[in-house]
Amino acid sequence: MTSRSRMQGVFSPVLTPFHADLSPDPDRFVRHCRWLVAQDVGLAVFGTNSEANSLSVAEKRGLLDGLVAAGIPAGRLMPGTGACALPDAIELTRAAVAAGCGGVLMLPPFYYKGVSDEGLYRAFATVIDTVADDRLRVYLYHIPPVSQVPITLSLIDRLLKAYPGAIAGIKDSSGDWSNTAAMLERFQPQGFDVFAGSENFLLANLRGGGAGCITATGNVNPGPIVRLFKQWRDDDADTRQSALDATRAAFAQFPMIPAMKAAIAWKTGRPDWATVRPPLVELDARQQSALHAALDRVGFVLPDAQALA
Amino acid sequence: MTSRSRMQGVFSPVLTPFHADLSPDPDRFVRHCRWLVAQDVGLAVFGTNSEANSLSVAEKRGLLDGLVAAGIPAGRLMPGTGACALPDAIELTRAAVAAGCGGVLMLPPFYYKGVSDEGLYRAFATVIDTVADDRLRVYLYHIPPVSQVPITLSLIDRLLKAYPGAIAGIKDSSGDWSNTAAMLERFQPQGFDVFAGSENFLLANLRGGGAGCITATGNVNPGPIVRLFKQWRDDDADTRQSALDATRAAFAQFPMIPAMKAAIAWKTGRPDWATVRPPLVELDARQQSALHAALDRVGFVLPDAQALA
Repeated sequence: MTSRSRMQGVFSPVLTPFHADLSPDPDRFVRHCRWLVAQDVGLAVFGTNSEANSLSVAEKRGLLDGLVAAGIPAGRLMPGTGACALPDAIELTRAAVAAGCGGVLMLPPFYYKGVSDEGLYRAFATVIDTVADDRLRVYLYHIPPVSQVPITLSLIDRLLKAYPGAIAGIKDSSGDWSNTAAMLERFQPQGFDVFAGSENFLLANLRGGGAGCITATGNVNPGPIVRLFKQWRDDDADTRQSALDATRAAFAQFPMIPAMKAAIAWKTGRPDWATVRPPLVELDARQQSALHAALDRVGFVLPDAQALA
Repeated sequence: MTSRSRMQGVFSPVLTPFHADLSPDPDRFVRHCRWLVAQDVGLAVFGTNSEANSLSVAEKRGLLDGLVAAGIPAGRLMPGTGACALPDAIELTRAAVAAGCGGVLMLPPFYYKGVSDEGLYRAFATVIDTVADDRLRVYLYHIPPVSQVPITLSLIDRLLKAYPGAIAGIKDSSGDWSNTAAMLERFQPQGFDVFAGSENFLLANLRGGGAGCITATGNVNPGPIVRLFKQWRDDDADTRQSALDATRAAFAQFPMIPAMKAAIAWKTGRPDWATVRPPLVELDARQQSALHAALDRVGFVLPDAQALA
């Protein structure tokens, strides 16, 4: 153990369940979080796959309060708190720290494109300086395919030098292993925890000294992913990695968020689980049938599905 | 005149003045809007060049209330109300309609990329159906270089058929004249008003039957742009268009928002006008000198600059 408590292992950007009228369903959200924690999955609520950027700040704060009130362990929570507008990022980050969250996962401001590292440095620094709380642990969120605003190695270097206590790690969702490898080599030895952005890179990341992964499919395939995290030194690790990849690939034939929600709706018998907020769209009947077939082919099981119903 | 009052002419995404602590300066904002209206420029407050996506919903509502309270004519206001999260877009749109704004300029939800026209249709439809007010006039905001989420011709067609009263027009900031020309041909005859996204295409747009332009440089070069709008049938129109292009090019050598703010800071002698919110960064001293030289070369004048000080 280092002097500070570190977040490690498998985390999931927790799916946000909606009612048919598109309002969030806080009760199902609590049950889903409880189900994930029971399977040793940490809670990266309000991530990309949570449709977090389709939620208002007030909705996110309400859902977070609900989790804490329901006894979800705050130390397992790594809410997404990055936003285009600094006041929003500050408000969410402050609320997360006040709630005792183990860390926050922070997108850069993502509307303006082609911005400089200096501008992004100021954005992160303003949040950290304004929240001004020693408990704050920031995990940077590098997801250029979606945000279109990358977090470069030189930006990490500068932030880590300026805020060695607050800057705790990164989720690398670039899909570019050479980038993750560079982060592992340069920053992981300084206690900057590198999380792979999907389980596809889990084994490679652990072999490189990384902290685990934060992965969409943690929502639906938690057991096997956590098992690889715990037993990655075993002889059959590569075989297990291949099995994880096959399950992920079955989902990834479809838009991921609607597909994961459709799988839960199918296995729980609760059709409202399939609801997504615009601009996302539910899978149509043909896609659903194809998803079911693809999941059957890889032997997909949603454990203890009734806990999510 | 058609049966509904239409917004036409030159609009500007109004720059948002900040204090040194990065909070908005509502008094300078009112003065800037008053200055623009006096020069016949409409007020597309909370646009891209307003750093609107760096403002919280509460900040935008406060600034809008301040404009109306100060007597800025609401019919000249076309606030940006699009947002990633539908509740935010609904709240801002409802506030704009309640304030009597002539229209709203609506970005699509822009975090998730590669989304379908069906998903974007549902996003716009949800806002219109929820606001549910006959006074609502929506101008779609197509700016793929920044939002990375385009508004296609088929999406416009579908929205216009479903909401012929509410869907009023578009700002085309694609920078692709063939796209603007296609919109003019297909939709302008239906009373769907096409605004060019910069004055570079003002003359072409007017010759094609369009409604005007919504342009960043309206903030700093209003007179000549409005003159071309009013006298575009005159013999010297092409010469005037060339002069507008030269002034814009002088700004566009630099990041546009910091450059326009730097020009106002220079001409008013108020250095705080240069302040931008992260992730943007002010021009450095070398860039400022280069900007001053470039503006002097094109004979740039900021009329009645002291009204903005």
